[in-house]
Formats: sequence, C-alpha cells, structure tokens
Amino acid sequence: MSASKTYLERSKLHANPTAKAFLELMERKKSNLSVAVDVTSKAALLDLADKVGPYICLLKTHIDVVDDFDMDLVEKLTALAKKHDFMIFEDRKFADIGNTVKLQYSSGVYKIASWADITNAHMVPGEGIIQGLREVGKPLNRAMLLLAEMSSAGTLAKGDYTEHTVEMARKYSDFVVGFIAMQRYAEKEGDNFIYMTPGVGLDQKSDGMGQQWKHPREVILDRGSDVIIVGRGVYGAGRDPAAEAKRYQEAGWDAYLERVHQK
Amino acid sequence: MSASKTYLERSKLHANPTAKAFLELMERKKSNLSVAVDVTSKAALLDLADKVGPYICLLKTHIDVVDDFDMDLVEKLTALAKKHDFMIFEDRKFADIGNTVKLQYSSGVYKIASWADITNAHMVPGEGIIQGLREVGKPLNRAMLLLAEMSSAGTLAKGDYTEHTVEMARKYSDFVVGFIAMQRYAEKEGDNFIYMTPGVGLDQKSDGMGQQWKHPREVILDRGSDVIIVGRGVYGAGRDPAAEAKRYQEAGWDAYLERVHQK
Repeated sequence: MSASKTYLERSKLHANPTAKAFLELMERKKSNLSVAVDVTSKAALLDLADKVGPYICLLKTHIDVVDDFDMDLVEKLTALAKKHDFMIFEDRKFADIGNTVKLQYSSGVYKIASWADITNAHMVPGEGIIQGLREVGKPLNRAMLLLAEMSSAGTLAKGDYTEHTVEMARKYSDFVVGFIAMQRYAEKEGDNFIYMTPGVGLDQKSDGMGQQWKHPREVILDRGSDVIIVGRGVYGAGRDPAAEAKRYQEAGWDAYLERVHQK
Repeated sequence: MSASKTYLERSKLHANPTAKAFLELMERKKSNLSVAVDVTSKAALLDLADKVGPYICLLKTHIDVVDDFDMDLVEKLTALAKKHDFMIFEDRKFADIGNTVKLQYSSGVYKIASWADITNAHMVPGEGIIQGLREVGKPLNRAMLLLAEMSSAGTLAKGDYTEHTVEMARKYSDFVVGFIAMQRYAEKEGDNFIYMTPGVGLDQKSDGMGQQWKHPREVILDRGSDVIIVGRGVYGAGRDPAAEAKRYQEAGWDAYLERVHQK
C-alpha cells in the first residue's frame, strides 16, 4: 500500500519528473499543505503566496480570477516558488474535448502549460481530454491530476464516474499522477498516485453554497489522502495567513507521520 | 412538444430575456447555426466572425485560446454581433464549486459575464455551480446552458448524469435555458429548453481525437435539437468560411422547416 510508504520512498518509484520532484519536496519541506489562493488581484495573490510560501508544498491557483493578470505575475509567482520551494498547481478543471483543451492549456492569455507544474481535468468529456492535455504537457515534463471526486454537495463525481476516472489514470500514468479525491482508493499493483483533497478546514463545516469542510487528520490519516488543500481556512476574513498556514502544515504533517509509522 | 413549435412561438413562452430574444433572432434571421470559432488570434477571430456573421444565430467562442486577447476584442466582437445580428456564447464549460465559478464568470481578465449572452457549465460539481453562476448572471439577464451530453467518444455525460442535469435545469429554468445535448429529451409540462448540438459536419465523421460528427438533418429533424454547432466544418483548412456557413445555415434551416411542418 503506497499510503504506508513515505513520500520520499514513493518519489523513487515515480517515472513522471514533476511527481518525483513534488514528493521529494514534500519530504524535504515537511509539508503536505496546498493553499488555494482565490484572490482577484496580482498584489493580493503575490502577497498571500509570499506569506504562506514557507509552509506549503503546493500553491493552488485559479489564475483566471485575477483581474490584472499579466506575464509579470507569472514571473513573480515562479520566483516565489523558487524562493520558498513550492510547486504551482493551476486548478483549471479542464473539461472540454481534446482539440480544445490542447489550445486552452498551451495558448491564450494564460499559457498555463508554460508555468504550472501541475494542472487538472474532469473526465466527463472522455479519454480525448487526457490525450489532448498530455500532448502538450508531457514534452514539458508537466503532471496532471484527474478530478475523481469533489468536496461539494451533490457532486456527480461518484460511483462509476469515479471508477472510470481511476481506470483512465492508470492508462495514462506517465502524465496523470494522481487525483483530486476525498479518499485513497483500493490499489492495483504499480499504483503510485498522489491524492489531493480539497474542502479541508480546522474550524468550520460549510459555506452555505455547497462546499463542505473536513479536518486534516481525517483526510490524511483516516482517508489516506496525501495533500490537504485549504483555502478560506487560511486567508478568510480576520485570519493571519502565515500563522494559519503554519497551523495547517503542522496538522497535516502530524497526521502523515502518524500514518507512515502505522504498520 | 416544443420540438413541433416554431422558434417564434417558443420565444413567447420564455421568461428569460436572453432566451426569448435568441429564439426571436433565429426566426428573424432564418438561422439555427452556431459557428464555433477556435482560433488563437484576435485578427483571425474577428475576421472569421465577420465572414460567418451573416449566416449564424450564435457565435461560439473559446475566448481563453486567443493569445492576444484584450477588451478591444470584446468591443469589436460585440459590435460585429450588432452588425450581423447574432448572439455570443462563451463555451467556458464551468466546472467548479459555486464560490469559484462566481469569480471565474465575473472577474479575471475575461469578465465573461460582462459580454457573453450565453455561457455553459457541467453539473459534475453539484447544484452549487448553478447557484454561483446564477447569482452573477441573472441580474445581467444572461442565460446558461448545461452540458447534458457531449459529442466526444467515451463521455461520462450519459444515463443518470444526464437525467440529473435535466432535473437541475428544471429547478433553475429562469437562468438555465437549455442544454448542450445530442438529442431532445422527453418533456415535462412547462419545459421549453433550447437544445444545442456540437459535433455537426456535412462532410466528415471523426478527427481521430475522440470527436465525432453528425449531419445537420439528423441533428435537427431526427434528434429534435434546435441549434447545430459547427466548427472545423466551416473554417477548417482549405474551406471558404462564408460559403460553408451559408451551406450549413441552409441545411439546418431546411431541417427545421421540415420538422415544424410535420404534425
């Protein structure tokens, strides 16, 4: 079971260069925390990334909500990633046919493939979406996650939908390195997927718009996920982002240590 | 059955102002053709929109593949929409939780809600996605389509997924005015949805990356859809976009006339 291996042990088993480097980074930095930064200005995004940077393994962006986006933001973000030793995950949730996602990933104003180490996609359009994204991302050594489940109420990513998503990830495991999921799935030989779970919070349960939150310990230890994704819990109104990120980093890492020392 | 009513008859039954105006426009212009313009430069997009403009009811954009996008493009596109009498459908395929799609729809570089008459979303995140988009779009009199099915091979938008999507559209029918679908569904009393079908082509069957094409007559007459969406069939290599758009407009409209005169 990969859940009982350390991130470092698992990094050695990975063929995808980004997944390999990411698992090493987690161990080196003692962080399985990804902070989701959904702010609408460059200045706020850079400020937040700089504050939470020391505590995270992965910065999760929605680059398309930043009103004053430009390539200077990308340069500064990648500089912060280097300064603080984290990776960048553009949570684009691609959801179109192969021919379209190829363009959306490589082109346009954002040129996501040129700077995001990791991105993600829904399986709803069928296998062609992976083929299209992989054609762009693989030569750049990028990695992708599939959305196997979501944390929102009433999601249709469940049952057969989830199972089919996992099968597709196995088929393209040189590029699809893991899942957005609410739990670790039963493994087949050779599986070494990275599981990331959104909807994590230490203090609150719901936002009244379908989002539901779970405790880091539940996510990492009980559900066997690898990365906790925290958004408003870190930078919501009245919170000190650095102090909160530190608190989540510790909660996530403690749960991981407990997990890998279990036999 | 709304399929046997004319677009004009159906426009009178619609509460959503965009859907109402759109159905009127179709009848006035004798067009049920939407052209999907997936080009990566402003100049090419504007040139194409100007060429196909006289023949279409709806221009379908992927604004995020345009490398040199700016607000000047939006101004010019909306001016072309006025000049040629068509509406704009940003095929964004929103696929995130309510709180995120609100920002993606209203903010960022593209500010989609400020110019796209119609946009669309996947139901995979659950009901919150409609609530989030509706909060932004309804005050602006915008309309939305849900992706109930897709034209790509291996799509997971089928069976229960599709049925649930239709139920959600009924619940929010003041904002969700129709579907991306491969056929018209069994109707309940009060249903007046607009069906749009991608993957339409007169000359070709497949692109080798999961996309499959169907004939306009099959889509409008046999399957009962309302709008044919044509992309590469109109502007693919070696084609004259205006001549092709005219050919598709006529094929689509003939099939519609045949349909509404059937009893």
